[in-house]
Amino acid sequence: MSDFSDHSQIPGGFRLATAKAGFKHQDRPDLALIFSDNPVTCAALFTTNIFQAAPVKAALANLKKSSGIRAVLVNTGQANACTGDVGMSNCLQTLEMLAGLLGIEPHDILPASTGVIGDHLKLKLFAENLPRLVDNLGRSSGEDAARAIMTTDSFPKTAFCRARLGQGMVRFWGMAKGAGMICPNMATMLAFILTDLEAEQGQWQQMIKDAADQSFNALTIDGDTSTNDCLIALAGGKSRVSINTDQDHERVVQALDIICSDLAYQIVRDAEGGTRVLRITVKGAKDRQQARKAADAVGNSPLVKTAMYGGDPNWGRIVAALGRSGAMFNPDLVRISLAGVEIFALGRPVDMDRDQVFEPLLGLPDIEISIDLGAGPGSCTLLASDLTEEYIKINAHYRT
Amino acid sequence: MSDFSDHSQIPGGFRLATAKAGFKHQDRPDLALIFSDNPVTCAALFTTNIFQAAPVKAALANLKKSSGIRAVLVNTGQANACTGDVGMSNCLQTLEMLAGLLGIEPHDILPASTGVIGDHLKLKLFAENLPRLVDNLGRSSGEDAARAIMTTDSFPKTAFCRARLGQGMVRFWGMAKGAGMICPNMATMLAFILTDLEAEQGQWQQMIKDAADQSFNALTIDGDTSTNDCLIALAGGKSRVSINTDQDHERVVQALDIICSDLAYQIVRDAEGGTRVLRITVKGAKDRQQARKAADAVGNSPLVKTAMYGGDPNWGRIVAALGRSGAMFNPDLVRISLAGVEIFALGRPVDMDRDQVFEPLLGLPDIEISIDLGAGPGSCTLLASDLTEEYIKINAHYRT
Repeated sequence: MSDFSDHSQIPGGFRLATAKAGFKHQDRPDLALIFSDNPVTCAALFTTNIFQAAPVKAALANLKKSSGIRAVLVNTGQANACTGDVGMSNCLQTLEMLAGLLGIEPHDILPASTGVIGDHLKLKLFAENLPRLVDNLGRSSGEDAARAIMTTDSFPKTAFCRARLGQGMVRFWGMAKGAGMICPNMATMLAFILTDLEAEQGQWQQMIKDAADQSFNALTIDGDTSTNDCLIALAGGKSRVSINTDQDHERVVQALDIICSDLAYQIVRDAEGGTRVLRITVKGAKDRQQARKAADAVGNSPLVKTAMYGGDPNWGRIVAALGRSGAMFNPDLVRISLAGVEIFALGRPVDMDRDQVFEPLLGLPDIEISIDLGAGPGSCTLLASDLTEEYIKINAHYRT
Repeated sequence: MSDFSDHSQIPGGFRLATAKAGFKHQDRPDLALIFSDNPVTCAALFTTNIFQAAPVKAALANLKKSSGIRAVLVNTGQANACTGDVGMSNCLQTLEMLAGLLGIEPHDILPASTGVIGDHLKLKLFAENLPRLVDNLGRSSGEDAARAIMTTDSFPKTAFCRARLGQGMVRFWGMAKGAGMICPNMATMLAFILTDLEAEQGQWQQMIKDAADQSFNALTIDGDTSTNDCLIALAGGKSRVSINTDQDHERVVQALDIICSDLAYQIVRDAEGGTRVLRITVKGAKDRQQARKAADAVGNSPLVKTAMYGGDPNWGRIVAALGRSGAMFNPDLVRISLAGVEIFALGRPVDMDRDQVFEPLLGLPDIEISIDLGAGPGSCTLLASDLTEEYIKINAHYRT
């Protein structure tokens, strides 16, 4: 509520609110509401983890029932995952309370929770704070909302862009919090995108899926997938601008790529204990799937991640990860560049004074690892964090 | 050469030798020779990494050419991996030198190397030290040999057992060094088994493969597979005892399980920076493969590994890893025990004062993690290390 400077970023037709309910910490906002004046076209993607949290199950059910989503309610502190029937009942009660206050149907609200797995929602705090939250509608900025969904994130993550389509200008705004299971015991990645575009359901879902595949689904911090991950994208249509031409379509795709890539980058940038973002590009794989296998092996290798943390131009670890990745290639055709400098070519290290060449390059906050497998047209890019003592400290010595 | 106390452990027909060649460190043995008085029945398993080191390729070729392997030559310091044609030529030259000294064919020797990837063998040091090595034959103990193949291992790893078959007693002895790619920039897991059993080639290979699947292939330190991994098992036949009955077969299987499990445990025990061995047992999976997927996800999860290091009874991280493992199951049927105490049952945490219950249990050097997926008859066991600041320190700040 403190900062109204980015109000103009929020697409028309949407209002935000936040409240300090005291779910876990007393001194910070931990409840956020997104409200649309009209029913929206909603695209949503949820965790692939078998242990789906109650809010994920409830959101999936509501998406089937609703003829037009109107609101998203997000709490931080308790993930409401592995909480059984009680957890589901609690989730539905929060939606009923909110629906009564907003004068809409409970199934037109999508819930999202993040925080400790196994802990129950605190219904009393919801009952006390939901009226205030509704009163606050429109008084919170995008950054306020992004801050109210944080768990151990060190900064709020938002992204904004505009696209000029044939019928006029549309706005896209997004917010996200902490990636995968980076956070100790937390159930974690939540992302929300709002736009005033008038979108058709099937096309909108496909565009969001494609954008997520290139961004949120192409990052790794520790290879863990949480029980609460979700991406919810609401197209409210307030602009009365819709997609009518291939060029319109292309521009919306670009806008979504900008929003999603920006948020995905911020998530990796904020990895627990992380000091560097690794941009891993694999090309020359047999196909995209094999490129992804190779990139995943490198991006999840503790040895590569610790080497990059230490600024060590350790091609041997990259090579060993590629060789066990499951991607098929001829080792004698492989080329690897670090920070733009070729370090491994055609199965052998490039002759150079590696420490001298790389010393100034590997201290940078972003490190490019480019791999050419020489086996085909498949390519992909993956963002990964490095791995530090701080990550261990946070995750070993944390207690819920 | 200092300790002859375990000479009696080495099966008849084999002699060991070690030498200080100074490949990397000046003050320690770094060259080991296993020699058999007679041609042996040899079973061997090699790394599945696409980047196979020169000694792996040479050993595979020699196994095809040889009508009876006589010796194994192991060096530490240089892995001779990613060294191209020069590396292969160097490897073959060391075999030729040694063959001349031993009066056998070069292709009757199997080479194995461990150490830094990308570095070339130091042929001059081989030329200087191989004669001394051959002179030393029979003067080195099993522990001497196990010490001479170490890289960053903190203790030598050997195992011994006897089996009484119908025709008489046979002996099994094994040694191994460091697991996977635990070692900074090292190419790493080597294991050798010697026996005086008279074995038939096809049966021997199958028995070794089965034993390795339950031991060396069922451990993880950091999920990385090195370019030099190998397991070589030599059956010399000196005892004149062979496998003639189902009971004989069963006893040899047991003996190999003891040797391999013992060495595998020692490897995980000696994980870099590791403080605890995690014994992860999965049962109730649809099949063995799915059990393995579930165990791998848990054993390689940095969040589970750091929780166990911190002694935190964090079932949420185990649950999250299981849920993304790819194994299929109903989350409401899952049960998890930590150190023998059920902590999660039927989709929900067991109600208890977790910190009080587990405080004395999770400080132990071995921690059992037992998982029942409730979905079928598939089971498996995996040994994993924990993950500590020390691992990061060693791997981030190490320079080759």
